[in-house]
Amino acid sequence: MTRMLTVLAAALTFMQPASAGLFSDDDLATARELRERALERDGGFEIVADLTTRIGPRMAGTEADAKAVAWAEELLNDIGFDRVWLEPVTFDTWHRDYERVTVRAPGVDEQELVSLALGFTPATPEGGIEAEVAMFADLAALEAAEPDEVEGRIVFIANRMERSRDGSTYGPAVQARSRGPQVAADMGAEAIVIRSIGTSNNRFAHTGMTRFDDETQAIPAVAISNPDADQLERMVALGEPVTVHVDVGAVYSEPYTSHNVIAEITGSESPEKIVALGAHLDSWDVGTGALDDGAGIAIITEAARLILDLDERPQRSIQLIYFAAEEIGLLGGRVWAEKHHENFGNYQLGAESDFGAGPVYEIGARVVDEAWPVIEAIQAELEPLGIDLGGREASGGPDFIPSLPHGLAVVDLRQDGTDYFDYHHTENDTLDKIDPENLAQNAAAYAVLAWLAAQSPIDFGSGPELLEQLDQ
Amino acid sequence: MTRMLTVLAAALTFMQPASAGLFSDDDLATARELRERALERDGGFEIVADLTTRIGPRMAGTEADAKAVAWAEELLNDIGFDRVWLEPVTFDTWHRDYERVTVRAPGVDEQELVSLALGFTPATPEGGIEAEVAMFADLAALEAAEPDEVEGRIVFIANRMERSRDGSTYGPAVQARSRGPQVAADMGAEAIVIRSIGTSNNRFAHTGMTRFDDETQAIPAVAISNPDADQLERMVALGEPVTVHVDVGAVYSEPYTSHNVIAEITGSESPEKIVALGAHLDSWDVGTGALDDGAGIAIITEAARLILDLDERPQRSIQLIYFAAEEIGLLGGRVWAEKHHENFGNYQLGAESDFGAGPVYEIGARVVDEAWPVIEAIQAELEPLGIDLGGREASGGPDFIPSLPHGLAVVDLRQDGTDYFDYHHTENDTLDKIDPENLAQNAAAYAVLAWLAAQSPIDFGSGPELLEQLDQ
Repeated sequence: MTRMLTVLAAALTFMQPASAGLFSDDDLATARELRERALERDGGFEIVADLTTRIGPRMAGTEADAKAVAWAEELLNDIGFDRVWLEPVTFDTWHRDYERVTVRAPGVDEQELVSLALGFTPATPEGGIEAEVAMFADLAALEAAEPDEVEGRIVFIANRMERSRDGSTYGPAVQARSRGPQVAADMGAEAIVIRSIGTSNNRFAHTGMTRFDDETQAIPAVAISNPDADQLERMVALGEPVTVHVDVGAVYSEPYTSHNVIAEITGSESPEKIVALGAHLDSWDVGTGALDDGAGIAIITEAARLILDLDERPQRSIQLIYFAAEEIGLLGGRVWAEKHHENFGNYQLGAESDFGAGPVYEIGARVVDEAWPVIEAIQAELEPLGIDLGGREASGGPDFIPSLPHGLAVVDLRQDGTDYFDYHHTENDTLDKIDPENLAQNAAAYAVLAWLAAQSPIDFGSGPELLEQLDQ
Repeated sequence: MTRMLTVLAAALTFMQPASAGLFSDDDLATARELRERALERDGGFEIVADLTTRIGPRMAGTEADAKAVAWAEELLNDIGFDRVWLEPVTFDTWHRDYERVTVRAPGVDEQELVSLALGFTPATPEGGIEAEVAMFADLAALEAAEPDEVEGRIVFIANRMERSRDGSTYGPAVQARSRGPQVAADMGAEAIVIRSIGTSNNRFAHTGMTRFDDETQAIPAVAISNPDADQLERMVALGEPVTVHVDVGAVYSEPYTSHNVIAEITGSESPEKIVALGAHLDSWDVGTGALDDGAGIAIITEAARLILDLDERPQRSIQLIYFAAEEIGLLGGRVWAEKHHENFGNYQLGAESDFGAGPVYEIGARVVDEAWPVIEAIQAELEPLGIDLGGREASGGPDFIPSLPHGLAVVDLRQDGTDYFDYHHTENDTLDKIDPENLAQNAAAYAVLAWLAAQSPIDFGSGPELLEQLDQ
């Protein structure tokens, strides 16, 4: 028995996390206080309510984009950040005028399908384009087709996105949107219609970016809602030729300058060292961008506000970055990476909230080996929020992806996105889809993360150090 | 103990339904066979799939209305009914061209709200109508307002329909749509915007009829979706004057003649006596009318097809009535009542399926006292489908309401409508919202009802006899 107890004691010692004792009792007490306070408050719900009510849709390059930037600057100054500033982001713009997709076939009454033009798609010629539809189960089937099955036709890619908690089903499905139009254009299609990259059976089309290698060869590209894609599949299954008419009004406009909006809580001991929390301020043009990404704006702002309310400043600085023009190609994120990457040695961590308002269930991080125990210690303080420890691969969120090649250390606070793609990029992305309690859980998680990252006894290794480790 | 057993035996005798022995064993066996067969098949799903795929929206008075009538005639003949015929229904028509509602306020970016013009609303003058909004919690609040709160304004009625299984919450809520526009017009409003009479937070507006006493005094009336109504409420709550712009294109057209489509299984013994199953063929113009009322068409047709497949004809006749123009005022139902009421002594029962595709949970009936045991006996055969016995008040469904003053006996097979008003009268009423298993349960219930009603040893007392009993 004595021997057994000894083994057990040894095992327990072994199981004690490497992170024990990393943070001072005071820092841990503050982390817990932040966590509890966040849950008692409304988690920033009033921030996303105000943004979506006053500004509503705020597509990059529109008047509402400028109003959103002004709204953000005022909000961040009102809250009392130590510094608030703008960094310009210049980009080409596009806007939608209208889209209309109708379908007819022998024995089928002409019907209109619910559609949205994809971002940066060209307009059709006056009066639209009409052609027989060529249906493909997925992008691979299109790629495997003979050119004469596609040439002169309107391609329809029918693949359906499956639901998943972590959103991992989006990447494979979205190829039909991001690459499908180029593939169809290369094969001589007149236009392309895709099943929306979304999981809901509500009759909303999902927009989103598509890209052509050569804009002069671009073809009009639209998404139709899931019920309309079902309808089109049934029509094709009737066995007679189905004719689709696509009419898109869309305009490419002059380059526009928007801004990344940045606010700082200046650190008390190492102000040059920065923990960066991100979200994006722009949205698509069809909903009010409540989930994508008003929620993220609210979550990181509420987290920082809780820290600002403390009696002390954190040791390192904490910055909020409201990225510009994420939806049309991570443009704010690209500019930010370009501008700041030479200083990444001072950036501790990047973490963007851009996956709606579902609860966080896991933390993952891309940091140097020496700093992983700090991530474990932070997870221990997130555990009461139901947040597990994930692995050592992380992206930090879309706007930090352009920073990854420069070695930015990043954290993912992974949200439950089971319902996210029901609303994403649709007219239905509105405030009522946000649960304030889940929003508060997110704010609590970001407050704990930001505070402890700012107090960490160990740097996270951003820059050359991390790149070197990853190379090995 | 002996005495107790005697009491128990007496109680059991008492509990034995009065209906025992009403139907022959053969008839009951056939009823059970119909029930089981219905559940094994697809419940007519292919009928509603074909209708909604080939015809899609089929608003009364449109080209699609005529195509739907032709589709119905062909279907019923193909199935092999003994007789199929049309009865004309003539009515004034209206169609929607477009609607657009925008809103602005100090400190609020101009935004578009998702809207649908209400049925038979007038168009706005060229360029639309713009005025400050006057918000009221419900119709009663509008009625209680001072005229100067309303005159020259655009009224907004904000009341929200609550969810219910039996749909009983619709009646009170829909007053805002049916009477609100007239009340607002009487008080001098320029136009009226109502919160959609629907239960979903999806961003679909719900259309539906409204009525004005005097069309020359009518004002444009639109519904906005629930999320947009929330948005408008929040804008008003900011405390600054909110301006709404309503632009409606709509056309009143020439009278049009559609048809009630009627199909008969001619009875073997009393062919002049008729069990009438109804559903309506028209739909609103915005969805494909899958739930409202393609499902009803499928349910009653599948039920009758099961009976047609039997080796014998029922004793009495069974008729299917596909009513015309239900959505714009029960017009097919009115014409049918007018044409047939003098023969109601021969009509056994009317029962319309027009509440979507949720499962039936209860049977209720309005029949003479002598026939109530027959309803109890029918319910006993519906019990395995999860259908309870309801009370002795019933409407028979919307299209039989005009027949009630003439004493038509009616049955309600009450469906679970918890989700029905999520989709009702919206663009989102599409085939994917129908669960084939629930549809089959409905078909099973209608098959059992129609068969046993046609074999009943007791008449249900339609006409003067029922009116006399109800008067007492």
